[in-house]
Amino acid sequence: MLYIIGLGLGDERDITLRGLEAVKKCDKVYIEAYTSLLSFGLSTDGLSTLEKLYGKPITLADREMVEEKADKILSESQESNVAFLVVGDPFGATTHTDLVVRAKKLGIQVKAVHNASVMNAVGICGLQLYRFGETVSIPFFTETWRPDIRVKEPSLESLCRGKKLYEPPRYMTVNTAIEQLLEVELLQGESEAYESLVLTVEFLYLIAFLEVYNEDTLCVGFARLGSEDQMIVAGTMRLLQMVDFGAPLHCLVIVGETHPVEEEMLDFYRLTDDVPQHTGNV
Amino acid sequence: MLYIIGLGLGDERDITLRGLEAVKKCDKVYIEAYTSLLSFGLSTDGLSTLEKLYGKPITLADREMVEEKADKILSESQESNVAFLVVGDPFGATTHTDLVVRAKKLGIQVKAVHNASVMNAVGICGLQLYRFGETVSIPFFTETWRPDIRVKEPSLESLCRGKKLYEPPRYMTVNTAIEQLLEVELLQGESEAYESLVLTVEFLYLIAFLEVYNEDTLCVGFARLGSEDQMIVAGTMRLLQMVDFGAPLHCLVIVGETHPVEEEMLDFYRLTDDVPQHTGNV
Repeated sequence: MLYIIGLGLGDERDITLRGLEAVKKCDKVYIEAYTSLLSFGLSTDGLSTLEKLYGKPITLADREMVEEKADKILSESQESNVAFLVVGDPFGATTHTDLVVRAKKLGIQVKAVHNASVMNAVGICGLQLYRFGETVSIPFFTETWRPDIRVKEPSLESLCRGKKLYEPPRYMTVNTAIEQLLEVELLQGESEAYESLVLTVEFLYLIAFLEVYNEDTLCVGFARLGSEDQMIVAGTMRLLQMVDFGAPLHCLVIVGETHPVEEEMLDFYRLTDDVPQHTGNV
Repeated sequence: MLYIIGLGLGDERDITLRGLEAVKKCDKVYIEAYTSLLSFGLSTDGLSTLEKLYGKPITLADREMVEEKADKILSESQESNVAFLVVGDPFGATTHTDLVVRAKKLGIQVKAVHNASVMNAVGICGLQLYRFGETVSIPFFTETWRPDIRVKEPSLESLCRGKKLYEPPRYMTVNTAIEQLLEVELLQGESEAYESLVLTVEFLYLIAFLEVYNEDTLCVGFARLGSEDQMIVAGTMRLLQMVDFGAPLHCLVIVGETHPVEEEMLDFYRLTDDVPQHTGNV
């Protein structure tokens, strides 16, 4: 049996009772290391926080390992109970569809244990999840690569780059994202620019109503969503660019037309005069 | 302090450790009764399953109570720790924005504990959450009311009806939803029909790419998503209409253009010849 278990967004306490129960039944526990594991106490002191909670060792599985050593994980799953832990929800921002497909083809039973994902947790800002548009990841621009030169088949090239970015990981910030978005908007004008951003890569989700944006467009910036020290700020692109959101992960919502109730809730997060700086506990 | 705590989708074991910790700190615990609480062991033997787990009594809060007695919940939150439990995620399918707004206006600290929502858990079918379109609830048609006669200001009338539907609750099924969708499509032809469905009411979320559909459109039907006996079937509208999905809650995804990886995953759920009937454990 292969358990794919969502850990939620905050820290080790965000696993569900069902998830914890499953981990305790497993002979082998892997944890995906694609996304930030900072808040799960994994970066500095190894895996100790989670290992202590689970009472067993955990193997860190980076993207390469999951792709190349999937056979090992799968053959172990044929003979025993294996847990594959995922930050957020197993089928949220990062899908683990490939592993599941391969498991199912081998006749291995797969059980998913759901949890919160950034895809639903952004609802905390008051915007109705029902009305959200498509989500995209925003890649880092480089000196020589911009999404606007996509005619030269940048996808392979950027994928290679993306791969190299994993060590050391760089996390997209709200500020850089807005900077890049505005640069593209200036270059290309129309909302077509959006499409060019739906290319690849890292750690920032733009949950966007597909409309043209500019410096005055209302956005909501999020950092460490679901953690004790999460930060949520609503304001124009211009204002949000000046906000220090602190440690990753960041994400950004471009706000479309709003309802009055949505407005009321957004007001609690709205930036007026002072630009907040991350203090470690907002 | 007012804690708004997501219970997740399955049963009492889907609360997170963080959520359980918060409930245990609270002097008063409410649970919203808008959505199905069947699987949480609340309908037949009162609140015993959850009360046993939490070690304290729970007050069932129906929609009327939350609307009319919010003052009581809020004044209790000013003096002590109050938990307001929500099936799914607090800001998922059903928002509790109004309660949060009122609390914040009174200066009450509000903490949300996130969990899985149907809005992200549907990703289990293999379709990329990033690419989902708008979500709508589908109301029950009646003899005299169809969304297509919306020119006669049906919204107030239907809201009144909607309210009456709460006792006894009726849950929309995949089958009725498809029947109604096809009826509207026949009447109105074009995708405009969609808009007429974004009107009100209960318990079925149509997560739809905004395109025209017909009997041959591929859909995915879900029942009891996140529960041990969840059922997921992919097939054309025509085929899914014949499937017995069993007990609520149901939801339906109308599938747009797919990627090969999405296809591979969908194949595991795809209906070919035999039409499955709910056996209580699929």
